[in-house]
Amino acid sequence: MTSPIAAIILAAGKGTRMKSDTHKVLHPLAGRPMLLHLVDSVAALDPARTIVVVGAGRAQVEAAVHPLGVETVEQVEQLGTAHAVLEARSALAGFEGDVLVLFGDVPRVGSATLARMLERLHADDEPATVALGFRPADPAAYGRVIADADGRIDRIVEFKDASPEERAVTLCNSGLFAARAADLFDLLAKVGNDNAAGEYYLPDIVSVAASAGRHSAVIEVPAAEVAGVNSRAELAAVEAEWQQARRAQAMTDGATLIAPKTVWFAHDTRLGRDVLIEPNVFFGPGVEVADRVTIHAFSHIEGAQIASGAVVGPYARLRPGTVLGEDAKVGNFVETKKAVLGKGAKANHLTYLGDAEVGAGANIGAGTITCNYDGFFKYRTSIGEGAFIGSNSALVAPVSIGKDATVAAGSVVTQDVEAGALGLARARQESKPGWGTRFREMMKARKAGGSSK
Amino acid sequence: MTSPIAAIILAAGKGTRMKSDTHKVLHPLAGRPMLLHLVDSVAALDPARTIVVVGAGRAQVEAAVHPLGVETVEQVEQLGTAHAVLEARSALAGFEGDVLVLFGDVPRVGSATLARMLERLHADDEPATVALGFRPADPAAYGRVIADADGRIDRIVEFKDASPEERAVTLCNSGLFAARAADLFDLLAKVGNDNAAGEYYLPDIVSVAASAGRHSAVIEVPAAEVAGVNSRAELAAVEAEWQQARRAQAMTDGATLIAPKTVWFAHDTRLGRDVLIEPNVFFGPGVEVADRVTIHAFSHIEGAQIASGAVVGPYARLRPGTVLGEDAKVGNFVETKKAVLGKGAKANHLTYLGDAEVGAGANIGAGTITCNYDGFFKYRTSIGEGAFIGSNSALVAPVSIGKDATVAAGSVVTQDVEAGALGLARARQESKPGWGTRFREMMKARKAGGSSK
Amino acid sequence: MTSPIAAIILAAGKGTRMKSDTHKVLHPLAGRPMLLHLVDSVAALDPARTIVVVGAGRAQVEAAVHPLGVETVEQVEQLGTAHAVLEARSALAGFEGDVLVLFGDVPRVGSATLARMLERLHADDEPATVALGFRPADPAAYGRVIADADGRIDRIVEFKDASPEERAVTLCNSGLFAARAADLFDLLAKVGNDNAAGEYYLPDIVSVAASAGRHSAVIEVPAAEVAGVNSRAELAAVEAEWQQARRAQAMTDGATLIAPKTVWFAHDTRLGRDVLIEPNVFFGPGVEVADRVTIHAFSHIEGAQIASGAVVGPYARLRPGTVLGEDAKVGNFVETKKAVLGKGAKANHLTYLGDAEVGAGANIGAGTITCNYDGFFKYRTSIGEGAFIGSNSALVAPVSIGKDATVAAGSVVTQDVEAGALGLARARQESKPGWGTRFREMMKARKAGGSSK
Repeated sequence: MTSPIAAIILAAGKGTRMKSDTHKVLHPLAGRPMLLHLVDSVAALDPARTIVVVGAGRAQVEAAVHPLGVETVEQVEQLGTAHAVLEARSALAGFEGDVLVLFGDVPRVGSATLARMLERLHADDEPATVALGFRPADPAAYGRVIADADGRIDRIVEFKDASPEERAVTLCNSGLFAARAADLFDLLAKVGNDNAAGEYYLPDIVSVAASAGRHSAVIEVPAAEVAGVNSRAELAAVEAEWQQARRAQAMTDGATLIAPKTVWFAHDTRLGRDVLIEPNVFFGPGVEVADRVTIHAFSHIEGAQIASGAVVGPYARLRPGTVLGEDAKVGNFVETKKAVLGKGAKANHLTYLGDAEVGAGANIGAGTITCNYDGFFKYRTSIGEGAFIGSNSALVAPVSIGKDATVAAGSVVTQDVEAGALGLARARQESKPGWGTRFREMMKARKAGGSSK
Repeated sequence: MTSPIAAIILAAGKGTRMKSDTHKVLHPLAGRPMLLHLVDSVAALDPARTIVVVGAGRAQVEAAVHPLGVETVEQVEQLGTAHAVLEARSALAGFEGDVLVLFGDVPRVGSATLARMLERLHADDEPATVALGFRPADPAAYGRVIADADGRIDRIVEFKDASPEERAVTLCNSGLFAARAADLFDLLAKVGNDNAAGEYYLPDIVSVAASAGRHSAVIEVPAAEVAGVNSRAELAAVEAEWQQARRAQAMTDGATLIAPKTVWFAHDTRLGRDVLIEPNVFFGPGVEVADRVTIHAFSHIEGAQIASGAVVGPYARLRPGTVLGEDAKVGNFVETKKAVLGKGAKANHLTYLGDAEVGAGANIGAGTITCNYDGFFKYRTSIGEGAFIGSNSALVAPVSIGKDATVAAGSVVTQDVEAGALGLARARQESKPGWGTRFREMMKARKAGGSSK
Repeated sequence: MTSPIAAIILAAGKGTRMKSDTHKVLHPLAGRPMLLHLVDSVAALDPARTIVVVGAGRAQVEAAVHPLGVETVEQVEQLGTAHAVLEARSALAGFEGDVLVLFGDVPRVGSATLARMLERLHADDEPATVALGFRPADPAAYGRVIADADGRIDRIVEFKDASPEERAVTLCNSGLFAARAADLFDLLAKVGNDNAAGEYYLPDIVSVAASAGRHSAVIEVPAAEVAGVNSRAELAAVEAEWQQARRAQAMTDGATLIAPKTVWFAHDTRLGRDVLIEPNVFFGPGVEVADRVTIHAFSHIEGAQIASGAVVGPYARLRPGTVLGEDAKVGNFVETKKAVLGKGAKANHLTYLGDAEVGAGANIGAGTITCNYDGFFKYRTSIGEGAFIGSNSALVAPVSIGKDATVAAGSVVTQDVEAGALGLARARQESKPGWGTRFREMMKARKAGGSSK
């Protein structure tokens, strides 16, 4: 079956319990807004349309999704989930295909699951709708899905209406559905709001379909995949589950994590084989790590490409635009930003490399600073292959240090140093014999006297 | 009821299992000595008297509590908990009111619980004593509290004396009590030591009261609130529980903790709304964080006020006396101590700011050091609004950099720089063409020859 | 009994699931290759011979164990564990004593357990072999050990051959054995390969012995001690168990760990009493910490000796060859390597001390760098007692700063400074009034105009 696919993602809720000025679905999971995890999962199925139903905080949500080509429709009144989905009806006028209904605050539903929902929708028994079920550790007050072994749903019962036998059923309703567009909107139009809250509930499409002689089906996923986020504590719990799964995958793929629980990955982190990661490493988005890389403890890495054999940290902070060549080393208390280091280049201690290019084999001494900012603009520093930058040097950009050049320790370099030359800028050393002794005596006396502050 | 309140906190035990030269009750929990957590809880009730019963390590304990206006009495011989409480009798001669008996190594009992104990003491049935009960995960060998549904105690039985039916009771005795002063000391005086250890046990006041026709009552708290500390492992367990509760509260109040288990709060940390805390942040005492602050990973913060919109870390170390203005930034490998940064001021990299004032909008370049110490005294540095301190500069205090002044990179500033001026102190750059190449050739030859070390 | 002891450690397997170019048994646990943990445990019994059976990755394993005087024999074909042990037969020709058979990927078996195995082997009932049993949380498909209360084994049954009654037995076979050399090789020679995999299985020695009228015995250890490592996830699990036990021991011995789960020890870390360790501290191998030392958060320590009263961190990185004297302090963003600090010496901020000796009471200012490397060789820096190194100084080694000497802030010191003298090397400060104001106006105009980049 190759029906066109549309996704409707509900994101109109206020998310009051987050106590945040940021819209709930824009809070990040693994470094990426929750809503965009869903947009990504849908995108993997090559959808014809992706529509987000917005309400409170509409502008924020639109700013996040419009650049990705995702549409929005507004739900002005909050009359329930069935009503929210119906808001997309006119936007999808004329669309003939399958529709997935997702929730912006249920972010971990993967593309494989979405594909299974659609596959089930087109199975031989042709269900009117496909629900996504799960078995939570504590089924509590979830609606129960009463289905046979083939996943044909007899009915979905709200917990409060359920009999003891029904409550003993552990398969619960996640609220997510797939249906053909024509079916979906027909069913939704018949959903009523004759309930305590006066709301139109999406799962009622199952009973509406049943009344019309159509059956629904359910497929089941692990509970973690449909965990919802209504508070920051729930967000932290979903993040923890995500990280746990990602760490296990990293180890399976051939990385050593000495203390897996202290390594945080981003949604798009890529790791090679025989990568060693010490405790307490944080990956922000956009990191690619090749084979045989060592990342020592307490490193903070985002937007960086790290080639094979490179050694990072401890206490290395690689910021976006960092590219480390093979066997390059970035050591403790070193920050890099838009910095490209060639093969075997080293910046081992207490250094800031910003807007810089460092040639292969160059050695950046401890305490080196690229002065890339004058308070208004940023400028570039270029350091040639094999160059040696003496410790505590300041390279005032724009400036270029040639191949095999040396910069003397403590120099402030404001002019280019040509290849093979020595650049130095420092004062002659003087000595004042006895000064240290006299100073100590004077200060001790002053301290004894209690003067100065 | 507004009877005056006195608290007696027992802290005479040796705490041998701690294997420490520091008195057990002075080991900190959430950055504050355990004993002082109790003093704080009592203080919230506005007590007339707070008395700590001291013994081993008396001097240490007194040094900790006397400055807070807390009295001490000595228990010279260790004859049991009832005896310890009796040591406070003469100190409380003439006191007419309620007495709370607490243990210095049971630090998490909160003021709400103390208030409930006193309220129960003055309930219509007027119990002689109020015990604090709990239900541990493993009741093990705790004494069992046999009570009715209203909390009227029939008896407290030691585990070894308990029948199978009594052992099946899960409500255990924490050892903490409330009683009217007159009742308490009367009851204590009648407690005997006819037991294996020959000690006078405080809980025996319940049976003594019963013998006199008076009943006692029990109120129940979660087990975590009465967890005791006898070893460093138990201290770590109490700390872990405390932190877990504090993290949950922070999330409920509107802070995002990406990895809650890696954030450590102090007893008095205050957090605003929409605060983002990355993994691995440590708060020492005295920190106040306003709304919309971001604290990146690996930050270590104590004694600091952080205004709204400020950005801290990663790897920022804020020490006592740090005040960050709105939207100020303190970045990686930066230490501040007694440093006040104005609105929008930035110190982004590899900097030490001590005894310094930095005006609004000033930019402190990477590698800047305020030289605030001459080995004997500390001196202040003042940096004006909008000033720009070039990288790798040393500001030798006392020194003042004026508004909108610029300090050239690599300068050692020993004299004030006036507003709007450029201060610079650096040597002219020289070049020695070919020196780098010759040096490399010479050293390669030497290395090949195996000379030098 | 004082029979000579030989150990045979099997390490011929490929370890495919590790997905690593490093041999499985060489992956480190607590900073030391797994195989060497076993070599250490055996060494504690003063063995006559230790033989590792190698196969895949032979060269790597031999490079690791030969320097320790451990022998290797090769198993060319992988025909099962019994076959692997037999490969050591000719190497042990003439050896009369006891043999322990261990697995290179079961690294936590301790010397006390090995001693117990040998003791059981020489008990009055003189068993032919002694197996090591354990009770896993989930016995799953492990072979069951059917034994009486005295540990006399009736039989060991593979899970697939086990009856329901046998499967209900929770004592499982770890695969490790002890036996007299003569018995062991005789039994092994009679083990067949009549099974599905066509392999020769070591545990079959039990049934071979039984056929000859000899019985075997079993002793039991906690499951964690015989946990095997076949994947990086299992390695992480064994590491986690090891760390958990080590942390508990540290607390029992009198160290405070505020957050035990965030402290990582190495196999040989030694800690004194009243040591305080804040969250997130990583110990590499070779660290010795005396009494009353404080280690602040985010410290990374390897190959260091730390004397009593010293204070380390936060963010201190002590590398091999670091020796801190009594009450010495190494503070934030400081790296030391082959650096010896005398009593009370301080390096509190943003410093690199490499190949350096620092006298008692010396004060190393913030931003000090010892320039110990010229790209080819390393050189030493010597700093005398009581010396004061001003901030942002570069000490170009080889260089010596005398007792009570002072180095002025920002100096590049290339020549020795004599005792009691002031060494300084810096440019005179100049001022260009109005430059800062003019610069800002110019740049603002340029920014408004959109020029520069």
